[in-house]
Amino acid sequence: MNTLHIRAVTFVAAIFSAYLALFMALPAVVDLYVGNPDWQVFTLSGLLVGGLSAGIALATFGSPPQLSARFGFLLVNVLWVTTAIAGAVPLYAASIGLSVTDAIFESVSALTTTGSTVIAGLDSLPPGLLLWRSLLQWIGGVGVIALGLFVLPFLNIGGVSYLKIESSDIGDRPFARLSTYTVALLGIYAALTLVCAVAYATAGMTAFDAINHAMTTLSTGGFSTHDASLGFYADRPAILWVGTIFMFLGALPFSILILLAVRGRVDPLGDPQIRVFATYCAGFILAVAIYLRVTSEVGFGTALTHSAFNFISIITTTGFASGDYSAWGPFAVGCAFVATFMGGCSGSTSGGIKAYRFYILYQLLARGLNKLIYPNSVQSIRYGKRVIDGDIQRATTLFVAVFLVLLCVGTLLLTLTGLDLVSAVTGTLTALTNVGPGLGDIIGPAGNFVPLSDAAKWVLIAAMLLGRLEILAVLVLMSPAFWRR
Amino acid sequence: MNTLHIRAVTFVAAIFSAYLALFMALPAVVDLYVGNPDWQVFTLSGLLVGGLSAGIALATFGSPPQLSARFGFLLVNVLWVTTAIAGAVPLYAASIGLSVTDAIFESVSALTTTGSTVIAGLDSLPPGLLLWRSLLQWIGGVGVIALGLFVLPFLNIGGVSYLKIESSDIGDRPFARLSTYTVALLGIYAALTLVCAVAYATAGMTAFDAINHAMTTLSTGGFSTHDASLGFYADRPAILWVGTIFMFLGALPFSILILLAVRGRVDPLGDPQIRVFATYCAGFILAVAIYLRVTSEVGFGTALTHSAFNFISIITTTGFASGDYSAWGPFAVGCAFVATFMGGCSGSTSGGIKAYRFYILYQLLARGLNKLIYPNSVQSIRYGKRVIDGDIQRATTLFVAVFLVLLCVGTLLLTLTGLDLVSAVTGTLTALTNVGPGLGDIIGPAGNFVPLSDAAKWVLIAAMLLGRLEILAVLVLMSPAFWRR
Repeated sequence: MNTLHIRAVTFVAAIFSAYLALFMALPAVVDLYVGNPDWQVFTLSGLLVGGLSAGIALATFGSPPQLSARFGFLLVNVLWVTTAIAGAVPLYAASIGLSVTDAIFESVSALTTTGSTVIAGLDSLPPGLLLWRSLLQWIGGVGVIALGLFVLPFLNIGGVSYLKIESSDIGDRPFARLSTYTVALLGIYAALTLVCAVAYATAGMTAFDAINHAMTTLSTGGFSTHDASLGFYADRPAILWVGTIFMFLGALPFSILILLAVRGRVDPLGDPQIRVFATYCAGFILAVAIYLRVTSEVGFGTALTHSAFNFISIITTTGFASGDYSAWGPFAVGCAFVATFMGGCSGSTSGGIKAYRFYILYQLLARGLNKLIYPNSVQSIRYGKRVIDGDIQRATTLFVAVFLVLLCVGTLLLTLTGLDLVSAVTGTLTALTNVGPGLGDIIGPAGNFVPLSDAAKWVLIAAMLLGRLEILAVLVLMSPAFWRR
Repeated sequence: MNTLHIRAVTFVAAIFSAYLALFMALPAVVDLYVGNPDWQVFTLSGLLVGGLSAGIALATFGSPPQLSARFGFLLVNVLWVTTAIAGAVPLYAASIGLSVTDAIFESVSALTTTGSTVIAGLDSLPPGLLLWRSLLQWIGGVGVIALGLFVLPFLNIGGVSYLKIESSDIGDRPFARLSTYTVALLGIYAALTLVCAVAYATAGMTAFDAINHAMTTLSTGGFSTHDASLGFYADRPAILWVGTIFMFLGALPFSILILLAVRGRVDPLGDPQIRVFATYCAGFILAVAIYLRVTSEVGFGTALTHSAFNFISIITTTGFASGDYSAWGPFAVGCAFVATFMGGCSGSTSGGIKAYRFYILYQLLARGLNKLIYPNSVQSIRYGKRVIDGDIQRATTLFVAVFLVLLCVGTLLLTLTGLDLVSAVTGTLTALTNVGPGLGDIIGPAGNFVPLSDAAKWVLIAAMLLGRLEILAVLVLMSPAFWRR
């Protein structure tokens, strides 16, 4: 690490914040249109953040440093933090009087596409603020996909590089094709959001709700414009099914959607992680739907609609709720707890442990058991047709083990702030996996994160960032080697 | 797997059950002495189990099969199950009227040194039954140590073989020294139990309680002769400190205690796992003692006594309680939850994830982070002075990952039986780690496992056996390769 690196990181971070400032014009226009005085907040915040960022960018402009892993790690950490701070400015300055902690929490929750909220009374919030929350989450979604597709693989963490599922298309000449794929990514993401918004509106949402929810659906973020989340539309199955379908799409690997769109290739849709992901989605949905049908008076259709919506929401780490599923009985609660670990596919907007890790884990277990019986057997771990090397195997199991350790550490810290065990465990879990709601009376699907102490919120802010950057990309900053000159 | 193997496994299992039947004479004598009619139950059970076992042993006697990993795995699984069934016979036949499920649960809980009980009203139970529970746990403790020292290493699972901490003493000529070390193990275990019993009695326990608790302390089992566990002696700090010290000793690697006793070598006491284990014990004890002192009216001495006793009890997977620590406030509950994962040293009577895995995990993480910064760096993972190879690294992280998966599966199954989330999660956890009490109103330190349904008890029976046999030794039976001829 040297001053050249730090200058360059500052420059990129300032550019990102400057772009974010441009987006503040949208809520400003909306609030101006409805006559809400917060249009000034967004305008001034935009000018402040934009001006400051532009100034810093100019001051730190210079020849780029040599690319290195350290530069990459510093960059992704700094980018997420500075963008979150920039995004928090209008939240803090707005008329609802959020504290600094709350504004940062909400912004981090948005940009990490978590969706936990510290704002109650969403239904009566000015439209500009609601739109800003949704926009932050939508932008965060782009960042998450870009991170998973273009950044982390080159840093040897997570996702496609490990799996090299389309190395013949992206991996071999990454920079040559980068711009094509970035354009394709943005195009597909925006197009899907638009289709989702139209579908929501057609199914009966107001236009404003449709746009906001489309942005937070595709980003598997889960912010809503209602305190009741999609429970506001609980009596409209069509709306819930639109949500279910587009959350599922948002959790698919965008690399594969890009190949589908750009090349018309359908064969990558048989990718092992997609099969694993679809299988556990179907498993949870059916198990809970049958349980609901058996233990309550609802018909199977209704049970399936709500089971599908809420469990796709949890598994894809979105965090919408169509009602208080924690009141559906112990097995539904158990399923919600376990589903919070799962996650979608790598290179998507979702978080969690993710399907490809379960796939590799299963193979490692099967091979490990075989090796206990035949100690000299040699059997390679495969992902589709590719062989997974030892480094990736270790990274996969290490991720899960470190995940469990962080879950324990977070639980201890949250109980130290006075939270009960269920809130502490599920709060840490939902933050690490970027899901949104936890379980229990406070942070469960019927609650929110308002009652938490500032200390608890900072623990969760750290956990959301750790989870978003696949844990190791944050922990690497704590390695002494990282800061060596 | 062939008929020769199955015959040999049956023979060994019958021999073990026959030995167990001999032990039934002890509670028979005690009940006869106090005039309790259960002496007939123990006598008849002994004759039945002994006679049946002897018959089976005679019928299956023959030349031993060639030793193989498959034979070893089948043997340890069958031994634990058949011995538990044999041990359950007098529990089922006794005057308290346990169901088959309850008798098996209690016997498995004893032999796996877990200590969860489905018997309420311990204080008024006939002494023979109490002694039988303690004896089963004490015998289970010997089995657990023998498993960890002499069996699993040769099956390439867990503990000393992985670490080869004393390979120059045991590993190189295992069978030549086996009898010496077995005698030393039994001698040390029995001597420590005796010293513990004398210490308990000196500190104020009745002789009967002292003998019973000494057996369940050294085996880190946790069965008590009182419903209140050691809370019965909560006002006697000396008794609690005796328990604390001997639980700690029971969780040390017996291989090292053997070296200390047989060779007078003290250097192995600096073994990394002992340092890690002692460090996290001290951490939990101090954190909770300070928390108790700050949040309540108790003096620091009392706080330290109870914190040390209960947290050493959880960490060493014993499961005694000196009171309802789940009422000490959220941080104490959080610590109890996290401490349930920990465990003692390999080759001891304790369960859980265990100190050496945390040590290896930490090194894997540190090296992994370093490798992210310097992708070409080569850095070996060491345990003390020895290099840990790739297979052991994978086994360590795979164990933790599979542990997390089983925790989730157990939670789902228990919630399906109607248990609440906290009981389901901590119930599975406490069974997998062989601790004893869970958390929550039902199975917490102030409760017991009586209210659970039979289905829930069978889930926990499976989890206790899985945890005791280090998970993989049970899962291997599910591999198709295992049953191939």
